[in-house]
Amino acid sequence: MLGNFTYCNPTKLYFGKDALCGLNEELPKYGKRVLLVYGGGSIKKNGIYDKVVKILKDNKKEIYEDAGVMPNPTTEKLKEGIERARKAKADLILAVGGGSVCDYAKAVSVSVHCKDDAWDKYYIRFEEPSCKIIPVGCVLTMVGTGSEMNGGSVITNHEQKLKIGHVFGENVFPKFSCLNPEFTYTLPKYQMIAGIYDIMSHVLEQYFSGEDDNTSDYISEGLLRSLIHSANIAVENPTDYEARSNIMWTATWALNTLVAKGKATDWMVHMLGQSVGAHTDATHGMTLSAVSMPYYRFILPYGTAKFARFAVNVWGVKPDGKTEKKIAEEGLNEMEKWMKKIGLVMNITELGATADMLEGIVESTLIMDGGYKVLDKNEIREILKASY
Amino acid sequence: MLGNFTYCNPTKLYFGKDALCGLNEELPKYGKRVLLVYGGGSIKKNGIYDKVVKILKDNKKEIYEDAGVMPNPTTEKLKEGIERARKAKADLILAVGGGSVCDYAKAVSVSVHCKDDAWDKYYIRFEEPSCKIIPVGCVLTMVGTGSEMNGGSVITNHEQKLKIGHVFGENVFPKFSCLNPEFTYTLPKYQMIAGIYDIMSHVLEQYFSGEDDNTSDYISEGLLRSLIHSANIAVENPTDYEARSNIMWTATWALNTLVAKGKATDWMVHMLGQSVGAHTDATHGMTLSAVSMPYYRFILPYGTAKFARFAVNVWGVKPDGKTEKKIAEEGLNEMEKWMKKIGLVMNITELGATADMLEGIVESTLIMDGGYKVLDKNEIREILKASY
Repeated sequence: MLGNFTYCNPTKLYFGKDALCGLNEELPKYGKRVLLVYGGGSIKKNGIYDKVVKILKDNKKEIYEDAGVMPNPTTEKLKEGIERARKAKADLILAVGGGSVCDYAKAVSVSVHCKDDAWDKYYIRFEEPSCKIIPVGCVLTMVGTGSEMNGGSVITNHEQKLKIGHVFGENVFPKFSCLNPEFTYTLPKYQMIAGIYDIMSHVLEQYFSGEDDNTSDYISEGLLRSLIHSANIAVENPTDYEARSNIMWTATWALNTLVAKGKATDWMVHMLGQSVGAHTDATHGMTLSAVSMPYYRFILPYGTAKFARFAVNVWGVKPDGKTEKKIAEEGLNEMEKWMKKIGLVMNITELGATADMLEGIVESTLIMDGGYKVLDKNEIREILKASY
Repeated sequence: MLGNFTYCNPTKLYFGKDALCGLNEELPKYGKRVLLVYGGGSIKKNGIYDKVVKILKDNKKEIYEDAGVMPNPTTEKLKEGIERARKAKADLILAVGGGSVCDYAKAVSVSVHCKDDAWDKYYIRFEEPSCKIIPVGCVLTMVGTGSEMNGGSVITNHEQKLKIGHVFGENVFPKFSCLNPEFTYTLPKYQMIAGIYDIMSHVLEQYFSGEDDNTSDYISEGLLRSLIHSANIAVENPTDYEARSNIMWTATWALNTLVAKGKATDWMVHMLGQSVGAHTDATHGMTLSAVSMPYYRFILPYGTAKFARFAVNVWGVKPDGKTEKKIAEEGLNEMEKWMKKIGLVMNITELGATADMLEGIVESTLIMDGGYKVLDKNEIREILKASY
C-alpha cells in the first residue's frame, strides 16, 4: 500500500431480487423530471421497462425518454442526449441497461450544463466538470463494466476512430444503483461471457502492476477465484441465481476503485481492446479477450514474479520444483484453456478486424505507463499481429 | 450472495503518510466549533496532538477538548462527553485515537441532541437515532476495530457488567478518517498484536456463517491471507511501513460492512470476548484470542466443510487423502500455532479472569444466532471453562 491515496465511494447499492424497490427509497430525493435512458429496447421485451415506469409513475415523476443508446455509445448520440436532457430539464437521469447505458448517462450528466464540446473537454483534454452535474441512478441489466459504482464513462468517436474512457471523480458516480441478478438472465450468452471477461480484465489490469506488497492484490485474487468459480457454473446454467449474483457483485468490486488502491494500474489491455472496438464496433469484453494472451505473454518477462504468484494463487498451479518462469507460463496456459472453455473470442479476426485495419488500430491505441512494460508502437503492432 | 441487501459506505478515507492533510480538505465543510476527543494522552507524547491542533488552528477552528477516553469507554465517561459536547455546541467531533475513541465519539454524536438515556436507548433497546447527529471525523492511531469506516460503537456499563456494541446505520459513520500507518508505530507491541487478532476475528466471524456460495468469502480469504502475511512481518519489525499499512487497510475492510454482504454473520467470539472484557477490563483483541480456539473447536462439527475450506485456502493445508474433518482440524491447529507464534493471549486466566467470575461471564454473554451453532448457556460455560 505504498503512497498516499484517498478512497470515497458514495454510491448506494440495492442488491438482490427486490433491488428495484430501492427506487422507492431514492426517487423522493430528486425533482419530478426524470430522463429515462435505455438501449435498443430489450427492456421492453423482458418487462423491466414496465416495472421501472410503474415505479416512476407511483412516485409521481414526469418521464422523458432517451432510448437507443448503442453498445459503444457515440459522440453523435451523446449530442442528441444532451439536447434531450436540456429540453427535459431533467432533475435525475435514470439509466436502465448495461455499462454502455450507464457510461452514456454519466457523459450526459456532466455535459447538460457544460458550454464546451463534451468530447473535447472530457475525452480529449480529460478535464473535470466545473458545471452543475445532473444526478444519475442506474438499474443494471448487464454485468461487466462496473459503471454502476464508479466514474467511468467510455465514448466512441467514429470520425476520429477513437474509443476513450474518462474516469470521473466521485461527484459523477451514480447516486444509487439497483442490481437484480435476475435482470441479467435474458442476456444472450455471448454478452454474458464477454461481460465475465470484462470483469476479469478489470481485476487483472490492476493486479498486474507494481512490485510492492499490497492488500489489494490479495483482494483481487479473491475476486478472481470467485469469478472463475461462478463463471464456470453460469456458463453451464445461466439462470443459476447464486452464480449470476456472485458475478454481478464481483463486477461491481472489480472496478469501483477499491482494488486500485496502492496500485499503479496498467490498462493496456483496455487500450488495445478499445482501439480494436473503435475500428470494428465489436463487443467490448471480446476485444479484451482477443488481445489478452498475446499481451500477457509479451509482458511476462517484465513481471515474472507476479505472473508466477497469479499462477499459484488463482489457477492452482503447483510450484514445486519449477522455475518462476515455468510457473508463470503455466498460469497463462491455464488461463488460456479456461478462456477457450467458456467460449471467449481469442483473436481479433473473428471480431471483424482485417489486415488493412492493422495500422489504424496501432495508431488509435493509447499508451499507458502503469504496467510492467511501457510499450512502443512497434510492440503494439507485434501484439496486435499475434492477436489476428 | 443470497437474499436482498443494501450497501452504502460514504466515509471518505485519506490514507498514507500525508493522511493528515485530508483535514485541510474536510474541516472547511463544518462549523468552527470542534470537539477534540482523545484518550490517555499518548498523542501528546508522540506529537500527533500538536499536528492536529495546528491544522485545526490553521483552519480557524475553536477547539474544545474531551480527553481521557479509556480503552473500554464507559457509560460514566459517555455522560461526561455528552455534557462537554453540549457545552461546546460542537459542530464537529474529531476523534484522535484508536477504536475506543472513535466508538466513543459516535456514541456522543448520537446522544448530544437525544433526550433519552443513551445507554438504554442505543445499547439496551438498540434503537436508531431520531435526533440530529453531530458529524464525526477520525484520525486513527491504532488499528483493529474498523471503527474509522463503520457505524460500530461499543460501550461498557461496569455497574451492569455489560459491554455492548451498537452497529449504527450509515448516517452515524465517520464523515472522514485519516489513516497514517506511521501513527501506529509507537503503539506497544501487545496492543498491535491484539489489534491484529481483532481484525482476524472480524473477518472470521463473518466468514464462518452461511452455507451458500458467496463472493464475500473469497474476499475474506484474501483479507485473511494478507493479514497473516503482513502480521508476520510487523511482529518482527513494527516499523515496516508496508506491513503496517497493509494491516491498517485490511482492518478497515474487515469491518466496514463489505464482507458481511450476503452473510448471516456470527459474532459469538465477540460476545464471549466482550463479556470477558466487561468483567476483567482486559484488552479487547486479547479477550477474542483467548476464547477463539475453544469456541471454534466446539462449533467445527456444525460447519466442517467451511472449516476445511478455511484450512486449505487460508492456511495452506494440503487436502490430499484426508477426510474433511481432518483437514478442518489441521486448519485450526495451524491457526493456533500462528496465534501462539505472534504472541496472542490464549486463555482468559492470563487476562485476569478468576474462577469465581465464571458464572458472571456466562451471564453477561449475549447469544447470537447467525453462526453454525446457536449456543445455550451450558455450552457457553463449557467454552469459557476451556478458555481458562
